Amino acid sequence: MKTQHSLYFDYASTTPMSDTVVQAMQPFLQEAFYNPSALYTAAKKVHAALDDARKVVATELQVRPAEIFFVAGSTEANNIVLQGVMKKYPEARILCSAIEHDSVYLTAQQYAHTLLPVTADGLLDIEAARARITGDVVLVSCMTANNEIGTVQPLAELVGLVRAERERRAKEGIALPIFVHTDASQSFQYMKLLPHELGVDFAVFGGSKLYGPKQSAVLYKKQGLELPPLLYGGGQEYGVRSGTENVATVVGLAAAVTESSKLREAETARIKDLQRTLTDKFVTLFGAEVQGSAHHRLPNNVHVRFPGADNEYLVMALDEAGIMAATGSACHASADEPSHVLRAIGLADDAMKECVRFSLGRYTTTASIETLIARLSDILQG
Amino acid sequence: MKTQHSLYFDYASTTPMSDTVVQAMQPFLQEAFYNPSALYTAAKKVHAALDDARKVVATELQVRPAEIFFVAGSTEANNIVLQGVMKKYPEARILCSAIEHDSVYLTAQQYAHTLLPVTADGLLDIEAARARITGDVVLVSCMTANNEIGTVQPLAELVGLVRAERERRAKEGIALPIFVHTDASQSFQYMKLLPHELGVDFAVFGGSKLYGPKQSAVLYKKQGLELPPLLYGGGQEYGVRSGTENVATVVGLAAAVTESSKLREAETARIKDLQRTLTDKFVTLFGAEVQGSAHHRLPNNVHVRFPGADNEYLVMALDEAGIMAATGSACHASADEPSHVLRAIGLADDAMKECVRFSLGRYTTTASIETLIARLSDILQG
Repeated sequence: MKTQHSLYFDYASTTPMSDTVVQAMQPFLQEAFYNPSALYTAAKKVHAALDDARKVVATELQVRPAEIFFVAGSTEANNIVLQGVMKKYPEARILCSAIEHDSVYLTAQQYAHTLLPVTADGLLDIEAARARITGDVVLVSCMTANNEIGTVQPLAELVGLVRAERERRAKEGIALPIFVHTDASQSFQYMKLLPHELGVDFAVFGGSKLYGPKQSAVLYKKQGLELPPLLYGGGQEYGVRSGTENVATVVGLAAAVTESSKLREAETARIKDLQRTLTDKFVTLFGAEVQGSAHHRLPNNVHVRFPGADNEYLVMALDEAGIMAATGSACHASADEPSHVLRAIGLADDAMKECVRFSLGRYTTTASIETLIARLSDILQG
Repeated sequence: MKTQHSLYFDYASTTPMSDTVVQAMQPFLQEAFYNPSALYTAAKKVHAALDDARKVVATELQVRPAEIFFVAGSTEANNIVLQGVMKKYPEARILCSAIEHDSVYLTAQQYAHTLLPVTADGLLDIEAARARITGDVVLVSCMTANNEIGTVQPLAELVGLVRAERERRAKEGIALPIFVHTDASQSFQYMKLLPHELGVDFAVFGGSKLYGPKQSAVLYKKQGLELPPLLYGGGQEYGVRSGTENVATVVGLAAAVTESSKLREAETARIKDLQRTLTDKFVTLFGAEVQGSAHHRLPNNVHVRFPGADNEYLVMALDEAGIMAATGSACHASADEPSHVLRAIGLADDAMKECVRFSLGRYTTTASIETLIARLSDILQG
């Protein structure tokens, strides 16, 4: 496994399931396959496994189990939050950063919305945000860290602004609430994210970037907040996500959350070293320019511009050399459109076409980095 | 596997994944885990597997691959259709049978809707339907067969009515279209369902009742029909279901569709025999009354009323005796509410509490039936 994935540099796109995750899922594929809502003992055991998974995740996030919901992917989770809040407050406005993932970026655009500008490093412009948190805003959505350029956002400062606005509204007797949502899909492996500490009302943690199952996500919803459902049906997941539960996936996701938490500290340090080495070599050997923030950055993201290069050619040449990297986010079904993230940080179309994202992960080693440098060297200087 | 499941009589609730399905999924769990939208060869191979799965399902249903969409479960699929159509035609009306699954029944109730009555056998009342297909109706939704009582609906007659209405509208220059949707989640294993033959515009086939993965479904959407999306995001599944694809699940679902089709004829005959034996014994030995239609019925459904019995007690006593059966549909997260299906066929609350659903499946044998009869005999006469 490790060998196979050693030249994979697209962990931000998706991760392989870990052995731990696959093993956790195994009993629920064929043996304990029962519908958790059924009345017999075998089904109740499956329901208990679902409850246990919820407790495990809640404990890890230091929240109540009743605040944890299992849904079918980060895209769905983000839609549940944004659409749910806007269904309840249809006259109000959403604020989100201009570099959100499409599942937030495009959903926000279905409603009255304001895109918050970012700096050239991709950092949320806090002063701009302050001016835009007006009395009609019900939801502020800002990702914990960006999926393309890896910039970690000043979420605490944003939450501070929202708190101040909340106080102002309370004082002035304005009834409209204001919530904060964060899509943390890219960051959980590398950042200890506790919803209460973050001060957010909604948070999303996706399994597919966490060595867990695809189309799985944890949705944290602060207790007491009502959210009209996106799907109508049997009322599973306390009405938040109807449809017979995929218990295998849920158990796998919980295992991924636990494992990622356990490995977090060591992996963050290890990957940060690899990131530094790789970035330095890219800059010194190939004159690459790093996109995104140097300081506020996920340890696994190396998004660089190779001036004069063509990123599609590069990615294909690397592919031929056995190395997997990305021109963009690969979150699009079609990669034809220019990235709204790179546009928002001020990159011209020409410059965008010189950018490659290398994202590191659990099976990236020093040897992987050396091989990447050697083969890229051949390509660029060959 | 077969032995373990031989006393399982709740196949209508959910099915175990077959060995074929699990084997088909295996390569995509850890090895071929790549994001199908990525540009490198390994990811393109994963994309090709997704395309192949689409072709396999399309061939089985005798439709075009572009008419097949993979989504996260039947509940989601039904919501995509109903909510999508109503988003496009917000002023129009939905018609659905009074015994639809909650994912249709409750979704329809979010809009202007009419519930079509059924007979005491659970058959759609065609004359009542004729009168209710008025000029404001945009969508008629009727399940192929009911999940609780197993009644197979007169879908062809309903489609005939809709066709007549379509012609009337064309003649009179009425622009509002009228579509037919069928939730076929319970029936695909036992009925050869070809969308063109059925004359439907939308059809839903769920994996979790088909020995396939949970939270997986095939959505058939007739070519050319526009459907605003339920989820906004990366635009996967041609915009119908955003979110990085779960290729393992999709491949497993396609394998389940193929396998179910292959086994259909033999399994239908085999299960029908078991159904007849079981029903006869229930009636002659225990004075049971069969709910639902005797003639228009899924072969695997035995929904019976044991006059004087308490269904919760029965299901629990059976459970202690190692037999798994259902009081209701188990599609509800909470089983406390009385079934809208049994109410619609005219059962009083008291009678509902005497009903048990036994649903047969691939691992049910003559021996299973004999054991069930013997143990139920002990319980009822003990």
